[in-house]
Amino acid sequence: MILVVKPDATPDQIDHILQRVEELGFKPHVSRGEQRTIIGVIGDERKPQAETFGAIVGVEQVLHVLKPFKLASREFQKHDSVVAVGKVKVGGGHLAMIAGPCAVESLEGLDRIAGHVKRAGANILRGGAFKPRTSPYAFQGMGEEGLKILRDVGDRHDMPVVTEVMDPRQVGLVEKWADMFQVGARNMQNFDLLKEIGQTRRPVLLKRGMSATVKDLLMSAEYVLAGGNANVVLCERGVRSFEDSTRNMLDLSAVPNVKGQSHLPIIVDPSHATGRPDLIPAMAKAAVAAGADGVHVEVHDCPEKALSDGPQALLPDQFNRLMTEVRKLASAVGAQID
Amino acid sequence: MILVVKPDATPDQIDHILQRVEELGFKPHVSRGEQRTIIGVIGDERKPQAETFGAIVGVEQVLHVLKPFKLASREFQKHDSVVAVGKVKVGGGHLAMIAGPCAVESLEGLDRIAGHVKRAGANILRGGAFKPRTSPYAFQGMGEEGLKILRDVGDRHDMPVVTEVMDPRQVGLVEKWADMFQVGARNMQNFDLLKEIGQTRRPVLLKRGMSATVKDLLMSAEYVLAGGNANVVLCERGVRSFEDSTRNMLDLSAVPNVKGQSHLPIIVDPSHATGRPDLIPAMAKAAVAAGADGVHVEVHDCPEKALSDGPQALLPDQFNRLMTEVRKLASAVGAQID
Amino acid sequence: MILVVKPDATPDQIDHILQRVEELGFKPHVSRGEQRTIIGVIGDERKPQAETFGAIVGVEQVLHVLKPFKLASREFQKHDSVVAVGKVKVGGGHLAMIAGPCAVESLEGLDRIAGHVKRAGANILRGGAFKPRTSPYAFQGMGEEGLKILRDVGDRHDMPVVTEVMDPRQVGLVEKWADMFQVGARNMQNFDLLKEIGQTRRPVLLKRGMSATVKDLLMSAEYVLAGGNANVVLCERGVRSFEDSTRNMLDLSAVPNVKGQSHLPIIVDPSHATGRPDLIPAMAKAAVAAGADGVHVEVHDCPEKALSDGPQALLPDQFNRLMTEVRKLASAVGAQID
Amino acid sequence: MILVVKPDATPDQIDHILQRVEELGFKPHVSRGEQRTIIGVIGDERKPQAETFGAIVGVEQVLHVLKPFKLASREFQKHDSVVAVGKVKVGGGHLAMIAGPCAVESLEGLDRIAGHVKRAGANILRGGAFKPRTSPYAFQGMGEEGLKILRDVGDRHDMPVVTEVMDPRQVGLVEKWADMFQVGARNMQNFDLLKEIGQTRRPVLLKRGMSATVKDLLMSAEYVLAGGNANVVLCERGVRSFEDSTRNMLDLSAVPNVKGQSHLPIIVDPSHATGRPDLIPAMAKAAVAAGADGVHVEVHDCPEKALSDGPQALLPDQFNRLMTEVRKLASAVGAQID
Repeated sequence: MILVVKPDATPDQIDHILQRVEELGFKPHVSRGEQRTIIGVIGDERKPQAETFGAIVGVEQVLHVLKPFKLASREFQKHDSVVAVGKVKVGGGHLAMIAGPCAVESLEGLDRIAGHVKRAGANILRGGAFKPRTSPYAFQGMGEEGLKILRDVGDRHDMPVVTEVMDPRQVGLVEKWADMFQVGARNMQNFDLLKEIGQTRRPVLLKRGMSATVKDLLMSAEYVLAGGNANVVLCERGVRSFEDSTRNMLDLSAVPNVKGQSHLPIIVDPSHATGRPDLIPAMAKAAVAAGADGVHVEVHDCPEKALSDGPQALLPDQFNRLMTEVRKLASAVGAQID
Repeated sequence: MILVVKPDATPDQIDHILQRVEELGFKPHVSRGEQRTIIGVIGDERKPQAETFGAIVGVEQVLHVLKPFKLASREFQKHDSVVAVGKVKVGGGHLAMIAGPCAVESLEGLDRIAGHVKRAGANILRGGAFKPRTSPYAFQGMGEEGLKILRDVGDRHDMPVVTEVMDPRQVGLVEKWADMFQVGARNMQNFDLLKEIGQTRRPVLLKRGMSATVKDLLMSAEYVLAGGNANVVLCERGVRSFEDSTRNMLDLSAVPNVKGQSHLPIIVDPSHATGRPDLIPAMAKAAVAAGADGVHVEVHDCPEKALSDGPQALLPDQFNRLMTEVRKLASAVGAQID
Repeated sequence: MILVVKPDATPDQIDHILQRVEELGFKPHVSRGEQRTIIGVIGDERKPQAETFGAIVGVEQVLHVLKPFKLASREFQKHDSVVAVGKVKVGGGHLAMIAGPCAVESLEGLDRIAGHVKRAGANILRGGAFKPRTSPYAFQGMGEEGLKILRDVGDRHDMPVVTEVMDPRQVGLVEKWADMFQVGARNMQNFDLLKEIGQTRRPVLLKRGMSATVKDLLMSAEYVLAGGNANVVLCERGVRSFEDSTRNMLDLSAVPNVKGQSHLPIIVDPSHATGRPDLIPAMAKAAVAAGADGVHVEVHDCPEKALSDGPQALLPDQFNRLMTEVRKLASAVGAQID
Repeated sequence: MILVVKPDATPDQIDHILQRVEELGFKPHVSRGEQRTIIGVIGDERKPQAETFGAIVGVEQVLHVLKPFKLASREFQKHDSVVAVGKVKVGGGHLAMIAGPCAVESLEGLDRIAGHVKRAGANILRGGAFKPRTSPYAFQGMGEEGLKILRDVGDRHDMPVVTEVMDPRQVGLVEKWADMFQVGARNMQNFDLLKEIGQTRRPVLLKRGMSATVKDLLMSAEYVLAGGNANVVLCERGVRSFEDSTRNMLDLSAVPNVKGQSHLPIIVDPSHATGRPDLIPAMAKAAVAAGADGVHVEVHDCPEKALSDGPQALLPDQFNRLMTEVRKLASAVGAQID
């Protein structure tokens, strides 16, 4: 951590800065330039006290040298983490192909869709039982009944299942029925929820918030890791931008960006990122070429009757064709779909 | 709601669209132009079923005519809502001047700061007991102990108190000790929390999410209103942008924008919006000139020892000067500070 | 085009709206719903007069049904355009592999780099002679001398050359020496420059502006096409966003997005998009997998002595490895590098 | 400038970094911390060579200590610049009230509108003769004929006039007829245009680009100042954001932000920022309260017949009421309208 001193700071102010640095357990190292004096602060800049340096009179700027996360970092663990979701491995060259409807709507419907996606090559089944909807008047999900259906259909098709959890009070319930938690974009910084999940050992699919930087995403992962749960899979799903022809802007560069600084797997969700079935296949393929550890795609066999997000679902045939192309690309980049 | 039909849609597809429109309880009204056929859909476009029109084969675009919120709208209630926070009115020309430290840190510290802001003219005291921190290693707040201190200090200075609630499980506890809930930007779409607050009758200060549109903010308010709690005060606190010299970008136009379409009061938080004490006073004044129903400013008497967000706190003297200037502007725009 | 009428519009105001619609050469088609009256405006909504409808008293909203570009649209031309840059084809399955240094710095330097990229498989050579620099104190390019060097080196290595043009007064000069104009992100809406280029028949690589939507990009292409120059290749190069760990945010979904609505080729520039050599290869591969018609990569053999953008250049070896991987992916998606 | 060295850099690499620092005329100052070695680079970090440090092998990060602009900075000139536009002063407590139609459309029309805005209290007349339009099919302005009308009407009403210049070839012509150049948002980084204007002594109203940071804006001003023209007035006019209910997002914090680090005047354009007459007055008032040196508002007496941007124009009566309110606020903050 480096403190840049204001050009008009008095010697007394500079002395006070040095004194505070030492009081807080750091070692200062002063360097006087032509235009500015700078103070190197030696010690662990992730200590909570470090935040206060910016508030000392005479400090113009605080420059950070280290990343604020530890357990999620490549420096902490050199090799890629591989997370086991049921019997499916994610990371380290193993791709998660997560597919299913936006929401669990009925046993029959989910069973039919699961059959389609399984045959096409998906290895994890998704379906929402608790739905975070912008409108209080929209379908909010089937709740526990939906969880049971999801479990049942996953078992029938021998697929592990992932489903969203929105409320710390639901963590125990979702853990009972699902193989993997999903934390949605709107809850990426719902810290109480992250802490609760950190207390379990169940894998979690942590989606990037709509205005979260890559660093923010890794800090949220750090919450789960710090709780003791190492089974975190990240998910890039697009961020808010001025481009109004897509639902969000997919930031694919987050994939190599995360991989450079963290050992955690990261997958991509082109469905929520684009909101457009005409763009989803190209973006799923691009994700695999970019090195993602999987993709997450919503599939429905009758989108016009879907209770949630029908307009962005792929049809089973479209998903089937996509899987054929994804397999070619996976092979070209040396990844495998178990 | 209007459906634009694809230029290559077949007559059968168009018939199917019309049939679905009627099945879902709406009335279609077809208009054939030179380039496109459009179908006016007559009926309440806020019905959940309306979402599915975009998924029908042959539909190119869905254009919305109405706003998706009801209870929060000016059409629902013409006159400005006035929310009572303890004995302080907010809205309808009455300004909330909310001030205090970021976090409750100790009884003595809060008492001292409360004395300062009260004398300067603040009418509501703030202080966080549960803190949403990006880092799991940062100070997370004093919890219940902090709530009690806040209540105690509020009573000593005869000021109602507002404090953040982050978890649905804390709603009852916070309701017991505070006069107003605060829902932070990160929780604006924590729908379970909003529903829980909707079940109380306690006022809530609902902050705009970092990537929320004005419409999203009003939809979150709708969650609380739909639960039966009409005491919602909105808060503009800046959104994420590419500008990297301020913490967020304050969108002051949200003030007249909200007022045009909603009866709810809206205040402005220049502290979190800018993160810079050198910009906070100008933005607080601009807020009042723009017609905001109040401002929310963090004040600390020793920012370099604050446990949270010290670098963005105003000193008591700076706050005092700001209040003098705000009073002049309030008077110029015909608003009053009770 | 559809006009939504305000709920409190008087019959006289509605009559006036209908009259203006007819005066301006359109045909109105009224539909009265439960909550709003809407007026379908039949006629070509791209006529300049159409803009004024939003200013008529009583009009609440104007909804557009058609895209505002014509010549650039798929409706105007169904098949993919193939643009010839010298002897190299771009589009329709032919990939442009554009590489070279940011700026032309010397004959020897450019010759050396051109040799590297040619051997690796690049088919078009890039190099800037006029440089748009944020700082007036930075290296501004070699000017005409640089153009001559670029031409000379291109000829030696039998590669067509592309270089930036920033000023309408330079169009003739650049046309004389280069095979393709480049219009940079900062000049995407420099309409006088676009008009001047539209008067030539030289191909142009038109880069997306840092805050341009896909529609804006296509409208800028329309300026060139409307001038009579059909040889436009678009380029996605990232847009401004809140993510601060990359130079810009690469919006790869622009590739299929453009291809769905336009016949023009579109390539991707991962160098400017990310600004980070550690991310460029993954993004170049993703671009090809997404269906881009080529990539544009900056290469330098001694980045620490480059006069411009050294920190984002790939080394010749890195570029060579990238080309090997790109060829595999091109083959997997059925594209070819001539 | 500070170089952070990669944790795995070899001693040879570090030696090479130090050698390059010295070769380029700077003095290195090494500080070894627990986690990282950092190298303070003493010397003027605005020298062009400084850019290359980021490209040296072993450098992890480059941290800037100084602002990249000089002539525009407060450090260069402590007191506020006051720019004379004809006889009207802008800056240092003198407010520019710039008003007029988007485009010059006819002598009679402009004369009528000028009469209105002059009576209401505007002190500078605006009107576009060269119009940057997103569509090549839209009205592009009257050109030189429009400039003559603007001059004539300005003289009749004794008001200096400002008008947009888009092309370096037009600078001489516009200088002949207008008292102040306007450089629009789309041309903020049209560096050839800025250089050409820098060669004149005519004042320039430099608008912030749609994705320009405050620093970018000041760097563009630096281009004009470096050419020798000190008469620069900045203009905040909103930036691109995800909020889709306003044309742009007005970043009012740019006003105090600029004033803290630069001596140049800055005004605000709420017309282009919001695009909505219902929001313009509140934002104009907020601008004055925030300390802006003026506002820029489009006014038309028959918006539905305006040839450009009619939907965002204020009517003469609305502008008149706004001026009354602005005067009150100006008086409350100690500013004056000459």
